[in-house]
Amino acid sequence: MPAIKNILFIMADQLRADYLSCYGHPHIQTPAMDALAARGVRYDHAYVQAPICGPSRMSFYTGRYVASHGSTYNGVPLRVGEPTMGDHLRPLGLRTALVGKTHMAADAEGIRRLGLDTASEAAIFAAQCGFEPFERDDGLWPDRPGSYDIAYNDYLRAQGYEGDNPWHTAANSVRGDDGEVLSGWEMRHAGRPAIVAEEHSETAYMTDRAMDFIDAAGDQPWCLHLSYIKPHWPYIAPAPYHDMYGPDDVIPANRDASERDDPHPVYAAFMGHEESGNFAREEVRRTVIPAYMGLIRQFDDHIGRLFAFLEDRGLAQHTMIVVTSDHGDYLGDHWLGEKQLFHEESARVPLIVYDPRPEADATRGTVDSALVEAIDLVPTFVEAAGGTVPGHILEGRSLVGRLHGETGPWRDAVFSELDFGFRKARLDVGTEPWASRGVMLRTERWKYIEYGDLPPQLFDLETDPQERTDLGRSDDHAAIRADLHERLFRWLRDRRMRITTSDAEVEARTDRHKAAGIPYGVW
Amino acid sequence: MPAIKNILFIMADQLRADYLSCYGHPHIQTPAMDALAARGVRYDHAYVQAPICGPSRMSFYTGRYVASHGSTYNGVPLRVGEPTMGDHLRPLGLRTALVGKTHMAADAEGIRRLGLDTASEAAIFAAQCGFEPFERDDGLWPDRPGSYDIAYNDYLRAQGYEGDNPWHTAANSVRGDDGEVLSGWEMRHAGRPAIVAEEHSETAYMTDRAMDFIDAAGDQPWCLHLSYIKPHWPYIAPAPYHDMYGPDDVIPANRDASERDDPHPVYAAFMGHEESGNFAREEVRRTVIPAYMGLIRQFDDHIGRLFAFLEDRGLAQHTMIVVTSDHGDYLGDHWLGEKQLFHEESARVPLIVYDPRPEADATRGTVDSALVEAIDLVPTFVEAAGGTVPGHILEGRSLVGRLHGETGPWRDAVFSELDFGFRKARLDVGTEPWASRGVMLRTERWKYIEYGDLPPQLFDLETDPQERTDLGRSDDHAAIRADLHERLFRWLRDRRMRITTSDAEVEARTDRHKAAGIPYGVW
Repeated sequence: MPAIKNILFIMADQLRADYLSCYGHPHIQTPAMDALAARGVRYDHAYVQAPICGPSRMSFYTGRYVASHGSTYNGVPLRVGEPTMGDHLRPLGLRTALVGKTHMAADAEGIRRLGLDTASEAAIFAAQCGFEPFERDDGLWPDRPGSYDIAYNDYLRAQGYEGDNPWHTAANSVRGDDGEVLSGWEMRHAGRPAIVAEEHSETAYMTDRAMDFIDAAGDQPWCLHLSYIKPHWPYIAPAPYHDMYGPDDVIPANRDASERDDPHPVYAAFMGHEESGNFAREEVRRTVIPAYMGLIRQFDDHIGRLFAFLEDRGLAQHTMIVVTSDHGDYLGDHWLGEKQLFHEESARVPLIVYDPRPEADATRGTVDSALVEAIDLVPTFVEAAGGTVPGHILEGRSLVGRLHGETGPWRDAVFSELDFGFRKARLDVGTEPWASRGVMLRTERWKYIEYGDLPPQLFDLETDPQERTDLGRSDDHAAIRADLHERLFRWLRDRRMRITTSDAEVEARTDRHKAAGIPYGVW
Repeated sequence: MPAIKNILFIMADQLRADYLSCYGHPHIQTPAMDALAARGVRYDHAYVQAPICGPSRMSFYTGRYVASHGSTYNGVPLRVGEPTMGDHLRPLGLRTALVGKTHMAADAEGIRRLGLDTASEAAIFAAQCGFEPFERDDGLWPDRPGSYDIAYNDYLRAQGYEGDNPWHTAANSVRGDDGEVLSGWEMRHAGRPAIVAEEHSETAYMTDRAMDFIDAAGDQPWCLHLSYIKPHWPYIAPAPYHDMYGPDDVIPANRDASERDDPHPVYAAFMGHEESGNFAREEVRRTVIPAYMGLIRQFDDHIGRLFAFLEDRGLAQHTMIVVTSDHGDYLGDHWLGEKQLFHEESARVPLIVYDPRPEADATRGTVDSALVEAIDLVPTFVEAAGGTVPGHILEGRSLVGRLHGETGPWRDAVFSELDFGFRKARLDVGTEPWASRGVMLRTERWKYIEYGDLPPQLFDLETDPQERTDLGRSDDHAAIRADLHERLFRWLRDRRMRITTSDAEVEARTDRHKAAGIPYGVW
């Protein structure tokens, strides 16, 4: 079968799966996503390898579990030399570029140790997680030295937004009743429109930049990672999206008072974080969630604009399109704010894949309920681009077969990880930094979570799909937990660490020492 | 306490612990080792992280388990960017150099991907496992393109040994009854003297080169890794060492017919290898072992010469000295030849450490029976040189405290690993390359070995110190195995993969998002 030519890999940040209309949200409308799902496959059980930006993305971009790539938290550099999506795709002829956010922290110490010329192309790839940074924008700190978000601030200033940091004072701030500037960091302002005009918002700008890249790329095949910061906080939407939804559109929180009775210590500590305390209040949910929904609708509108652009350029039939997110957002569910823990609201993400090739016709518009993982994208892209998946490096599985209607054996569990060493929770729980970790294993029925030597958590997704009853200390479930613990063992044991030698090379060398000129053991 | 100035890190290859007189061999005499043990500490339970050259050395040189560094077998490149002993010691002011063998395979693909200038110092360190290759000699293939052993061949030719490859035709060959050259690869010739004169042998030459380095280094502190290929095969010793020991000096094989009854499938497959079949024959043992013993005695004599040189140069009181080996040699024990599996003859090694500082006076001449590992050397060197041990990278523990008489808590288990994917055994057992692995856990009493999904092995070292009775399938030991399995789980779980961020950095960043300018979750 012919390889696809281009890959458009779109990521939203902090976008919950259940906040798209094609995933069943009762009030939000996401027509572009829905249309993509209608011509592609919508994955109903897609999980990230870590429910927080940095490590989740490092898994998306390397095709490896967090335990393998080692970048366990935001700001933990991805070690130099860790192979990335770009390293796998460039040899197949694809220009692999970035517009938007990666949350990549460069391994400056490793780059120095190896003596890389930081201006060299290879060093830039090493520092940019394998992407050519056509336009990098992490959506934070644009006024800080070394920030990657300077271009958007420059753009805003060129549009007449003044000040040192219009990313904050225009795109993520609002005006009060007296015209004063109020910071979008304070969630009480989420109901007001951003000072920035919609067409100058970060979402609009990044979409424009993606179009710039596509036009600049010309006929060379490409993989473009278009990575939006929104609907991630600050929860500030530009007009008209800021009040497109109202408090009545907010779905009830998935939480029960019983969850606060004798909770798991790590869960308890996260419930004690400031963002959780705030999202536990209905006033906060009713103020923030409509803005969050507006940002999603805005995202969808720009995706629709981009899809029309692809059609206009005649690229749609040559381009694989993926839309996903790096994690969800609790929004008050389970008495939590933010993300990081492993409930569905946090660890599950939307994933829609469109394969333009005729082989995928049979699955168009279908829903695939298989357990898939973020790490499946790199092997999917490698196979789609005509390459051979290096199984000694990549720990995910290509989705191409499933997209083409194959129904062979598939994995029966997904895994996700947490490093809470950087959070106040660690101080509350009292664990050492290196030991402040969690790992989730989800099967069709069970979600099992271990936190080092602390007690585990267990949820029965069949009888308790809302995950309100923690069976981690239930006497009746000891055998289930033991079985899931053993599955965790095998997962840990089978990590791919021998990344410099493929299985095919091993096979070629097996029992060949004499042929290689080392005839030991001969009498 | 003042840091030590120099480190002399001596390694023999394939030297069994029990073949030194200070470790109790009844016939061999190793006075230099014995003298070093008398002024240092002799470790009685030292284990390598893999009982085969390459991966064992990569653990010695990185301070990390094989599961962490990923170089699982000879010729599997150490991934570029993996921090090495040299990376840890050079910032402390030590010139870190090599004379002899490392078995390092450079990650050419990674070096190319990162665009390293292969002539640069950093790239040379990356390719040479962090060592400055003052004289690299892997003791194999000196006539092959790209070999590191060319200098010794050049030296031999300068001494009048002719031919393309005098390493083979002189240093590792003998003369037959009619003066013909016979290859040392054939073990039947082990009783004859090498064609090379003793003073031109590889062991003598490497010792001379170590002296050259020490004189060249002048006053700059150094860590010299002096790494001999012998007593590793080819089992050919120069006169007078070739017949210094005879068949009567060969200790009985540690083996019992019962070991061949229903053996573990991996063990059975290794018993079926050619070297095992040969060493199962007494004729082979009585021919080869005396040569092996002669090579050890020769090694000891040159170590003695080197120690005298250090005294003569006034360096002994400033130099930490370590002598160890990368693994043992079955020599027919357990019906096996070579190494790789986890019996004491293979996984246990000699380890003697001399710390010249007064703080170590209390332990001089003592035997330490603690469970120590090859990965303990890098942290030992870092601490001895005055550095702080980076516990987020190094998985071993510094021995300095023990050397100075401290008696605090210590580990209660050691671990060693095997990748048998490259051996005929894999074909016999029928496992996939990536799944053809074993891992040993040894506690004070138990040795427990898992081979993927195959049955485990278990030995009770209290009742069966000779490891002749495999309790891996004993109904009476199910609870013991379950406990040891759980220890393996924790070991796998606690691998240090977040190598770019220290625990101290995590602590400094804990709960500091607001101070860092990211005030999320605020109302």
